[in-house]
Amino acid sequence: MGEGDLARIEVSLPDETARELATARQLKLTKPAGALGRVESISIWAAGVQGRCPPRPFSHPRVVVFVGDHGVARTVGTSAYPPEVTSQMVLNFINGGAAVNVLARQSGAAVKVIDVSVDCDLDYVAALRPEVAQHRIRRGSGSIDREDALTESEGAAAFELGQRIADEEIDSGADLLIAGDMGIGNTTPAAALIGLLASADAAAVTGVGTGIDDATWMRKCAAVRDAMRRGRPSMGDPRKLLQVVGGADLAAMAGFLLQSAIRRTPVILDGTITTAAALVADRLDYRAKNWWIAGHQSAEPAHAIALKRLDMTALLDYQMRLGEGTGALLALPIVQSAIALLQQMATFDEAGVSDRDA
Amino acid sequence: MGEGDLARIEVSLPDETARELATARQLKLTKPAGALGRVESISIWAAGVQGRCPPRPFSHPRVVVFVGDHGVARTVGTSAYPPEVTSQMVLNFINGGAAVNVLARQSGAAVKVIDVSVDCDLDYVAALRPEVAQHRIRRGSGSIDREDALTESEGAAAFELGQRIADEEIDSGADLLIAGDMGIGNTTPAAALIGLLASADAAAVTGVGTGIDDATWMRKCAAVRDAMRRGRPSMGDPRKLLQVVGGADLAAMAGFLLQSAIRRTPVILDGTITTAAALVADRLDYRAKNWWIAGHQSAEPAHAIALKRLDMTALLDYQMRLGEGTGALLALPIVQSAIALLQQMATFDEAGVSDRDA
Repeated sequence: MGEGDLARIEVSLPDETARELATARQLKLTKPAGALGRVESISIWAAGVQGRCPPRPFSHPRVVVFVGDHGVARTVGTSAYPPEVTSQMVLNFINGGAAVNVLARQSGAAVKVIDVSVDCDLDYVAALRPEVAQHRIRRGSGSIDREDALTESEGAAAFELGQRIADEEIDSGADLLIAGDMGIGNTTPAAALIGLLASADAAAVTGVGTGIDDATWMRKCAAVRDAMRRGRPSMGDPRKLLQVVGGADLAAMAGFLLQSAIRRTPVILDGTITTAAALVADRLDYRAKNWWIAGHQSAEPAHAIALKRLDMTALLDYQMRLGEGTGALLALPIVQSAIALLQQMATFDEAGVSDRDA
Repeated sequence: MGEGDLARIEVSLPDETARELATARQLKLTKPAGALGRVESISIWAAGVQGRCPPRPFSHPRVVVFVGDHGVARTVGTSAYPPEVTSQMVLNFINGGAAVNVLARQSGAAVKVIDVSVDCDLDYVAALRPEVAQHRIRRGSGSIDREDALTESEGAAAFELGQRIADEEIDSGADLLIAGDMGIGNTTPAAALIGLLASADAAAVTGVGTGIDDATWMRKCAAVRDAMRRGRPSMGDPRKLLQVVGGADLAAMAGFLLQSAIRRTPVILDGTITTAAALVADRLDYRAKNWWIAGHQSAEPAHAIALKRLDMTALLDYQMRLGEGTGALLALPIVQSAIALLQQMATFDEAGVSDRDA
């Protein structure tokens, strides 16, 4: 899909009528006006993205975990973990033992895992679960401090992969999507993208990732700075930016988030990696973010910067830094509760309760 | 139950061994150390209060809504709602149409409603649901700016009522308790108690309650100041304080919270009213708060002050100001998820994932 196609397939806005009806209905529920605070805003968002008032709790939430490694972890040594962890974690996802699996079970969500750019053999996964392994764009994205993350055709293929996965999920009934991430070194390209798109310094967006020491942090910060220098000439072309300083996983996530918005399907954003991809999708169409809500704010400093740039306030702030979709899933029951309140609370009339004007 | 009995029946501490096991287990789960942030702390708290590692998701959470009106709303006019709203809301609770009912259904909690000191006839409720109406201590608590909220015997009876209800809930299988509130004028005594126990000015603890104008706020603030002056001589006797500037509902909630801790049963604190009662229970036994977790931070300014005094940080901050137990119930799925993660995530060994030391 080229720029020309993107210009034709645009993101539309959520349903303003449903939002207005939801706003009005909140005033009729048996509680003082505004007493549910931000929970009321969540319910109004849900009404808008569902095009329905009252909205219904989401019945088919889905998480897609985009798995990809990054060369920068090996060349610069920015991660506390060895690369084989990624393949082991893919197996853990498949076996249901990872945090994302536990939280998905808690909130009734399904989990799909996609090897976008893992830097290990996944033969055992390919045999066991071909749908996980069949999409790989390349083996590890490039070391963005010194080379492009992807070739131009890989960048296009990764973006389209994300779009296609969003289409598949929505076509098979998903009514709420979450993009999760896993991979060695993915906080470095996320930091570079956020630094560029939110106009922040490399030092401000470089965090400790999975937990690194001061010397490693300095190397990581230098890598982010170098990547930002390499990426700056591509600032006017968000998709090119994904190719130069992003990676296959980030490109797929950006495509996924944009396509979800094109398909009028809401998304709960997760942590730093997803939100870096969201910043790119936001550049591609500024209306896309109307379809998103921010699940949590990560401990990574870049995440707060990215959310501020998107003018979003996360639902939770627990200093989590795991990714996988965990922060979004932890927030999902709050979104469901907000919807249930608007849908199920009695109105003053129904309950025979005196409003203050009565 | 007099002071002598209280001295004998003390609050014990949560299970330190279970906490230590939980802390150690978090390090073995397939995620970077500390990557779940505050969610890990919640799971460790749950292990301690359950005396078990890993803990189990709570299977029988219960909300008790303590309903009571306050004379100060009538004499000073501090509420935006007429007093008959309380009886109408009791019926709404019984019919399942209130916010607390919706959120309880969302999170699998049961709701009990207790008329502690409603200032209206509840004949229809008494006929329909005698267990709701049979406990009333008195018809409305006194106007605390000028008179004691309760007589000494009423104060004792209300406190014991709260203790008895906690016992009944725990004896019938509740493994997690929430105290909710509803009533006209209850933010005024809560503000007075918080002002006294957290050493804050009347103006700092006086909020807009259900939504009042500036002139009403000034009258309310004066009432809080007068109540604080009346209560100050009783600062050394927390139960006396409940009688002088609290009310039957607040006394019952304080008894409920203390007894829950004595019975080693955890509580998610709700908003300003519950937390005012919690401050009193904390004065009666400083160990009680180990059994509590703060569900949300209310829009009422007194609530932030009370939580700070208890050295607690709320799980959610959505500018809610409804009470009923709604803030605690909204946070319940997060507590359940934190427990499920510690219980169900695979360890590095189980999943065959390389730890950073491997």
